[in-house]
This record gives sequence, structure tokens and C-alpha cells, in this order.
Amino acid sequence: MRSGRVVYAGAMARWAPNARDRLETAALDLFVEFGYEETTIAQIAERAGLNRATFFRHFADKREVLFGGEDVLAGLFADGIRAASPDATLAELLSAAFAGIDATMTPRRRAKAAQRLKVVATSVEVHERGLLKHARIATSVAAALRERGIDELGARLGAQVVVLAFSVAFEHWMKADEDRSFAPYAETALKGIRASAAQLDS
Amino acid sequence: MRSGRVVYAGAMARWAPNARDRLETAALDLFVEFGYEETTIAQIAERAGLNRATFFRHFADKREVLFGGEDVLAGLFADGIRAASPDATLAELLSAAFAGIDATMTPRRRAKAAQRLKVVATSVEVHERGLLKHARIATSVAAALRERGIDELGARLGAQVVVLAFSVAFEHWMKADEDRSFAPYAETALKGIRASAAQLDS
Repeated sequence: MRSGRVVYAGAMARWAPNARDRLETAALDLFVEFGYEETTIAQIAERAGLNRATFFRHFADKREVLFGGEDVLAGLFADGIRAASPDATLAELLSAAFAGIDATMTPRRRAKAAQRLKVVATSVEVHERGLLKHARIATSVAAALRERGIDELGARLGAQVVVLAFSVAFEHWMKADEDRSFAPYAETALKGIRASAAQLDS
Repeated sequence: MRSGRVVYAGAMARWAPNARDRLETAALDLFVEFGYEETTIAQIAERAGLNRATFFRHFADKREVLFGGEDVLAGLFADGIRAASPDATLAELLSAAFAGIDATMTPRRRAKAAQRLKVVATSVEVHERGLLKHARIATSVAAALRERGIDELGARLGAQVVVLAFSVAFEHWMKADEDRSFAPYAETALKGIRASAAQLDS
């Protein structure tokens, strides 16, 4: 006969509302401690107090633990562009892409990002998965810009500018001493890239 | 005792000066005929009249057969930028990246590219490898621009513009009816992107 405690733990495992977050925390801790390649999904689930099946309800594979946030970003950028005022210029649409960014770039996310950077630096496979996610973000942003009537070249260039601005802002945000909000870094990066873009046509 | 014919074939396999090209042709033919996943390296080598060891002297793996040309491109772009006149502006450096491009974008390359596009469309793995090669080209172009004194943001934006201009030009070049030189397509794409870039600062 099972004890009440075991039944309770089982119920936690199945219904835990914060299972995704617990799995992510456990995975990052293990990746940093023992290495990305060496960590198994079973170990991640165990550390999180969950089982393998729960892991696979939240992540397709081990790499997705590191890059699930990129899909959230792609959605936020596209939403921001869609919500911009109807007469927004291309430049304004790119700023609008970052309108909702602070919702996900929280101090907690920043702490996890620091762990991620350490892990990504140790594995070519993981680094490449990160590059692919950037390509997918660009595809999502370009589609949102096309929906807003931006022509093909403008949409594709704009998408690259958003990804580049995010990368540059992220690098500076991570280096900042304190927990600051992300938006000002994004704004500064966009401004700098737009100034560089102006040089392209001279 | 070996016959003269066998010894001759062995010598061909080891020294064939056009081994890389023969392997590439054999691989693309097989990929299109039987599918990328289904084709083995042994089959590629056999079709080319070479052995597996020769294959691995030219390519790290099966995917590299499809994307070896991207490394050549990265080198050509960087060489073009390095050879530009000392007082070249950022816009002029980006044009200079394409100065030597026709050397590799030959009618023969175009025929192979058509086969490659068919293969890439059937495999997610191969498609992703292509995206990674684009990222590597961008890294190479950004480094060349930094060497020319372009600031960090300009170098990274410029690199994305070169990759985007190449992609757009390539799409149009592949759709053109006849075998035309690549450079005019690159010039048109760059011009269009520069016009879009001008909108970014408005």
C-alpha cells in the first residue's frame, strides 16, 4: 500500500503548475554542474522531482530546455508589430517589436540566461541550436512585417535588424551590474543599428 | 597478381585531381534519385569511382557535400572586402564583397544549385545545416568589415546585409531562364536593401 506522501508526490508530478519552470531550473543547474552532454533527461526529471513523461510534455528534447524562451520571444516580437498603430513606418514597427519584451526579460530570466551562456559556450551542438532559433525568430518577424504591408526586402532586412538589436541589447544587459529592465538596452541598440543603416545608402 | 587496369583505377582513386568535383556530382545525383537520408557515403564514393577514404579527405560528412560552396563564398566575400580601396565607405565595402562572386557562381554551379535546392527542401536536418552556414558567412564578413575599421554595429549589420543580398540575388538568379552571370543580381539586391535601410532611419 502506498503512503499518503507518495500519492501526494505523484499528484504533484502530474499536475505541478510550475513543472516547466522546475525542469528548466533543474536542467540548468545540472548542465552547469556536470556538463550539458553528461546530463540525462532522467537526471533532470529526478532533480525537479518529476518524471520523464512530464519532461516530454514540456520539452521536445534536452536542447529545447535551453531555447524554449526563443519561441516566446518570436511571439512577443510578432505581437508587438501587429499591435503597432496602423500608420507606423518600418522604423516604428521595429521599435514596436520590442514593446512587450520586458514581460519576459525579467531578473529571474537574467539569472538563468547567465547559466545558459555558460552551457552554450561549452557545446557546438547547443551553440548551433541557438543560431537556428535566431533564424526562426527572423522568419516570424519577417512574416509579421509582411502582414503590415512592408515589402519583401524591407521585411527581411527588418527581421535581421530586430534579431541583431536583440543580440546586441542582450549582450549589454547581461554585462550590466544590476538587474535593469531590458527595454532601454533594446532601444539603444536599435538606435545604433539605424544610424549604421543610414550609412548604407551613402 | 593485379592487372594493369586495377592498378590504374587505384591510382586514379588516390590521385584523381578532380575527386572533389566527382564526389559532389555523384552525391547530388544520388540524393535527387534516391533521397538524401537513403544515400550512404559508400554509395557516393562508388558512383564517383572512388573510395570512402577519398570521400573523407574532401568532406567531413554527407552534409558537407551540399555546403562546401558556402565556405568558398565566405572566403570570397572577405577577400573582396579586404581588396576594396582604402577610403571605401561601408556601402562600398558591401559592394566590394561581391566583386569576386562570379568566379564561383558559374553555369555549372547553377545546375548543381538546382539539385541542391531539391535536396534541401526534403530534409529539415539539411535545411538547418544551410542556415548555420549562413551564420558562418555572416561571422566571416563581419570580421572582414571590422578589419576595415567599421564599428561593431556597422560590421554586424553589414554582414547581415551581405548574407541577405546574396540570398535574394540567388533566388532571382536561380529563377532566371538562361545562364546569366550572378553579379548584376547581387547589385540589384544590394541596391534594394540599401533603399530599405534608408527607411529605417526615418
